[in-house]
Amino acid sequence: MTIDTHPLDTVLAAARAFLGDRLTTNAAIREQHSKGEDANPPVLPDAVAFVETTEEVSRLLALCNTHGIAVTPFGAGTSLEGHVVPVQRGISLDLSRMTQVLEVNAEDMDCLVEPGVSRHQLNDYLRDQGLFFPVDPGSHCSLGGMVATRASGTNAVRYGTMREATLGLEVVLADGRVIQTGGRTRKSANGYDLTRLFVGSEGTLGVVTKVRLRLQGIPEATTAAVCQFDSLAAAVETVIMVMQAGIPVARIELADADQMRASIAYSKLAFEPLPTLFLEFHGSPSSVREQAEAVEALSNEMGGRGFAWAEDAEARGKLWKARHDAWWAANALYPGCRGITTDVCVPISRLAEAIVHAKETAVEMGQNTCIVGHVGDGNFHCVILFPNDDPEGLRKAWELDRRIVAQGLALGGTCSGEHGIGLGKREFLVEEHGAEVLDVMRGLKASLDPKGILNPGKLFFD
Amino acid sequence: MTIDTHPLDTVLAAARAFLGDRLTTNAAIREQHSKGEDANPPVLPDAVAFVETTEEVSRLLALCNTHGIAVTPFGAGTSLEGHVVPVQRGISLDLSRMTQVLEVNAEDMDCLVEPGVSRHQLNDYLRDQGLFFPVDPGSHCSLGGMVATRASGTNAVRYGTMREATLGLEVVLADGRVIQTGGRTRKSANGYDLTRLFVGSEGTLGVVTKVRLRLQGIPEATTAAVCQFDSLAAAVETVIMVMQAGIPVARIELADADQMRASIAYSKLAFEPLPTLFLEFHGSPSSVREQAEAVEALSNEMGGRGFAWAEDAEARGKLWKARHDAWWAANALYPGCRGITTDVCVPISRLAEAIVHAKETAVEMGQNTCIVGHVGDGNFHCVILFPNDDPEGLRKAWELDRRIVAQGLALGGTCSGEHGIGLGKREFLVEEHGAEVLDVMRGLKASLDPKGILNPGKLFFD
Repeated sequence: MTIDTHPLDTVLAAARAFLGDRLTTNAAIREQHSKGEDANPPVLPDAVAFVETTEEVSRLLALCNTHGIAVTPFGAGTSLEGHVVPVQRGISLDLSRMTQVLEVNAEDMDCLVEPGVSRHQLNDYLRDQGLFFPVDPGSHCSLGGMVATRASGTNAVRYGTMREATLGLEVVLADGRVIQTGGRTRKSANGYDLTRLFVGSEGTLGVVTKVRLRLQGIPEATTAAVCQFDSLAAAVETVIMVMQAGIPVARIELADADQMRASIAYSKLAFEPLPTLFLEFHGSPSSVREQAEAVEALSNEMGGRGFAWAEDAEARGKLWKARHDAWWAANALYPGCRGITTDVCVPISRLAEAIVHAKETAVEMGQNTCIVGHVGDGNFHCVILFPNDDPEGLRKAWELDRRIVAQGLALGGTCSGEHGIGLGKREFLVEEHGAEVLDVMRGLKASLDPKGILNPGKLFFD
Repeated sequence: MTIDTHPLDTVLAAARAFLGDRLTTNAAIREQHSKGEDANPPVLPDAVAFVETTEEVSRLLALCNTHGIAVTPFGAGTSLEGHVVPVQRGISLDLSRMTQVLEVNAEDMDCLVEPGVSRHQLNDYLRDQGLFFPVDPGSHCSLGGMVATRASGTNAVRYGTMREATLGLEVVLADGRVIQTGGRTRKSANGYDLTRLFVGSEGTLGVVTKVRLRLQGIPEATTAAVCQFDSLAAAVETVIMVMQAGIPVARIELADADQMRASIAYSKLAFEPLPTLFLEFHGSPSSVREQAEAVEALSNEMGGRGFAWAEDAEARGKLWKARHDAWWAANALYPGCRGITTDVCVPISRLAEAIVHAKETAVEMGQNTCIVGHVGDGNFHCVILFPNDDPEGLRKAWELDRRIVAQGLALGGTCSGEHGIGLGKREFLVEEHGAEVLDVMRGLKASLDPKGILNPGKLFFD
């Protein structure tokens, strides 16, 4: 009598031959790889593979492809839309040990890194060379994950998102083939833009094993500023005026009164709990001054108060740390509660309407929310708080999310400015693009991953 | 007895039913649609269709797809790599009558245009609104064509290329389906980046029928400057220093001594026939002054002479007209000669090496050349002149092209910064990316155009 081996066992046995202990079925490790930072239901992978080289990724994918085993890439686990949940179980492919900075070409302002390098690690590495990497989502995410979700953050208004910052990639395809996309030049017209196709593909088209990034020179002068307003609308209208005036702000971030209440408590900030703009200006000393003065004049017109400049690096650091901790501050605001977050992005002229609508709808529904936003890009997050372990509260939170997205789409916006689709925003992706665009996307997926082993269940409903 | 109708006749008869006289087999019109501005051998299409609406494009593509008839999109006919040559005959799809500006959203700085709108037409339209569209290849090209080749030009160093400028597209797929990609927001993380996939796809994946573009505010102040050098290397080294210093020049263009000789004659310029940089600065009056002074200081270090500023719009207009006419000036330099052009782009640190090598190789081979370059992006064009109707001269010109590209690739560059691949650079595309990347690109093509009717023969060898 022959007993058929389950394909998973075949894969695990073969993978263990080259990964050794770095392929594990340890329960605690599988649990760590069952979810990101969002409220999607966790799923345990069958095993977790800690890969260290491109060749290991290639061998593992070839195996999984042959045997039809799902592979879900995992970086720092900071995803907010369920991207790392292995909904078809299989293998969670952990790239967090691939942390080498392979090249820095200071004179061309580019670098080549492994996907597990974090943006903090990269910026520490670059500091003495007068360079920095500007894309800064709030979390301690990895650069591979940032490529996967087309991440952005507070500096995107000036320096662009991962779309602009990624010059090229090394990608392992579903069948184990390894390709290089893009290159070191600032521009090119050399065939299909594969780099941009993989950026934002959420691990569904290939696994990124190297990332070439465009860097920026540390500006000669930097100033931060904070300004508070009596109304949310006045704060947002100020942003719209700043953007329409073409002032090249490096950062322009909004926190509503509730978020300020949360951040004042969490980050010990000495501000009022009022709608607040946080700004940063980069340039020569004179241009930084000129920009700050121009913004101050516009904010005064809108009744802004206490336009305070911080030229000193420590004060600025504290401010931006508080901004980056906003998600945690919001989650800590009501004991026993946690949050889900919207990620709507609209054309800048509709931003005040979108944000005010979100807040009013929340109040109408009796939901606690905190709003923060990369408002120079028209992108805001409404963190919707609900009691832990309360399915009805979560359902209500999602209902508010749905209403905010519907309004965003009606205003010519998108359901996701930077967090991606994952599991959580799949219904909106169809609504936003329509069935034919989804068909085209599925066709591209089928072309690159015909067996559907790569991060199955994400972006599309099965 | 039944006589089978040829599929082409079926398509022409059916298309004539909705296009009427705008479907033509007139010999002179077919001849106009047999080539662009390059030296690739012309091929006559079987017919030319002058479409006016998305619906007409959709109906025509559906017909051609059903019957397997090739379709080659045609805009302004300014392609430099044979993109518009209908190598499999069939239908040349002329979009030049689709010239409506459909929307301008001044407050969001975006617009929606039909593909036959030229960049000149768009900028005339925008002028009173304080906005401009920055991407400016030299020629009178159409915006649809610029999307197709991922065009750039002199302003790309500051404002980016069509990759950054294109917010969204309406595309007719090979089978006639119409999709909308992208949207009106400054950023998004909402599924695969289809916009960037179509930008630069050279009409091989779909036909663009609407283009949503990001606009820029007309800067408060603009200054142009010209500076001349004794050696090509000194001029290029100045560019490298300017870029590495992070000075946000709006334009920084090179012409070598031969190009200056050509442009002085063609455009009646009052300069010496020496390696020359043309610059432009955008910003507030004080920042423009600051930038110009910083560049002047660097150029002085490199022995630059006659750093002359032109604040007056007419003088600037004349300067940039001369720069944009460089291709025609070069072609007029030696009576009875015409040119082909290289389009290498390298990392900025290798630019001096690449340009000096190109010129030296040309001299070694006894070839007349003029060099111009969007040097802030590391992109330069070596216009190689050869006697009209001299196949051996053309062969020699291509041999020099090949050597310049080989050196560009060896320096970490690409064969095309902005002209695209078309017919002329197919061999380099394979060399640059390798067979596996080409396989991936072919797979994407097969997914979107399974019968291969869209601009066949371009990008890939059959």
